[in-house]
Amino acid sequence: MIDLNNIELYASELLDKFKNSPKKKYELKGNLASYIDHTILKPEANEDEVKKVCSEAKEFNFKSVCVNPSYVDLCKQELKASEVKVCIVIGFPLGANTSETKIAEAEQAIANGATELDMVINVGRLKNKDFHYVLNDISEIAKLTKNTNALSKVIIETCLLTDVEKVIACLLAKEAGADFVKTSTGFSKAGATADDIALMRFVVGEEMGVKASGGVRTYEDTMRMIENGASRIGASASIQIVKGEKPVSTGY
Amino acid sequence: MIDLNNIELYASELLDKFKNSPKKKYELKGNLASYIDHTILKPEANEDEVKKVCSEAKEFNFKSVCVNPSYVDLCKQELKASEVKVCIVIGFPLGANTSETKIAEAEQAIANGATELDMVINVGRLKNKDFHYVLNDISEIAKLTKNTNALSKVIIETCLLTDVEKVIACLLAKEAGADFVKTSTGFSKAGATADDIALMRFVVGEEMGVKASGGVRTYEDTMRMIENGASRIGASASIQIVKGEKPVSTGY
Repeated sequence: MIDLNNIELYASELLDKFKNSPKKKYELKGNLASYIDHTILKPEANEDEVKKVCSEAKEFNFKSVCVNPSYVDLCKQELKASEVKVCIVIGFPLGANTSETKIAEAEQAIANGATELDMVINVGRLKNKDFHYVLNDISEIAKLTKNTNALSKVIIETCLLTDVEKVIACLLAKEAGADFVKTSTGFSKAGATADDIALMRFVVGEEMGVKASGGVRTYEDTMRMIENGASRIGASASIQIVKGEKPVSTGY
Repeated sequence: MIDLNNIELYASELLDKFKNSPKKKYELKGNLASYIDHTILKPEANEDEVKKVCSEAKEFNFKSVCVNPSYVDLCKQELKASEVKVCIVIGFPLGANTSETKIAEAEQAIANGATELDMVINVGRLKNKDFHYVLNDISEIAKLTKNTNALSKVIIETCLLTDVEKVIACLLAKEAGADFVKTSTGFSKAGATADDIALMRFVVGEEMGVKASGGVRTYEDTMRMIENGASRIGASASIQIVKGEKPVSTGY
């Protein structure tokens, strides 16, 4: 049980420890496609675009299709009889709605076929140092996914946080029993950086997942994230990424 | 009762009519401050920032304070014994969550003291021409606000729409019994334009409100919107606007 009253001090110490530790390198396990949440979150996405993303995910064996809640039914239908998961974003992208709304949204998404939920933390409450609120906000979703064999990913929106706040957010996600921490929504000032991935991996250890998202567009970006500890990648340029894996021979 | 099967044709005709009509000019009625929803929607906004916005709203007699749902209680508390309304955004800023989530979020906001709700339409469903869905999505919120003497504003996110789609969105908002149409979330590619305000005012007529939001930062911007038919302004630079000063911060 983490001591919320001393979490800032503990986070500072962890951050120092991270800075003074040798950088750990991680290797790709299995195939690259299985790391990827193939993502379409723009609000104007129409049915045909979402269907195309589903069809691509099946063709390339991506881990999941990540969409807004309004498309959970469509994706369930399109992905039936495939291994591709339906990943739904919760409280997205601001995370500034109430816990009750996030819970209702999550329950509905799971009832309709989602097996992965990417929820956004309440960044304002983290800034307020209302750690109890942030922990509870995450815990509610993590409990729900555990009870239904779904996965929870906690979007901490790194670009809005100080390094110490990033550490605190990861500690809270771990304490809450979430399955992953995730860098970014892709709708704020910046996306994933390799340094943030390394820090997040250091804080959560080996048992949790770390997802890099926002601005990951090439094979090289992706491999840099994985080398630094990412176990999942959120991307819309997924096909370009996996095609970069084995460069096509030009031949003679 | 609008015919949803022919709404595209009707919208095209209305758009032509608008383009061929002389431009109507509107005048400021009463004082400028009463037009303004003083707004802080950035996800990292902390309690002190929200309190400051509330205090400014009371000092300058702005119409409302517009915040994310997580701050409804704080604003209710800060604004008690004042005329300033609590305005809460719903399904914000993507509008791509389910109607059920929007309804739950709206019910909770009203129960906790919101008297104005700014909801985002489902842009993807509008692109799909699923007009029945979009109408129903708006109607549910409009019914709820009518039953509780609150106001509903419908954010159509103009920058993502064609002109015909803008007209359709306004027609649907009017049909649904909403109180206002509103241009923008401030989180997408662009904000309010004077031309869009004129078009929206033309479509909804004189009985509904039109709110300009997103990028309205100066007195001159604001007066241009009002001249074109805006009856409400969403802004964070509200004090600069009423003082007729140059803007300092951009913000959301």
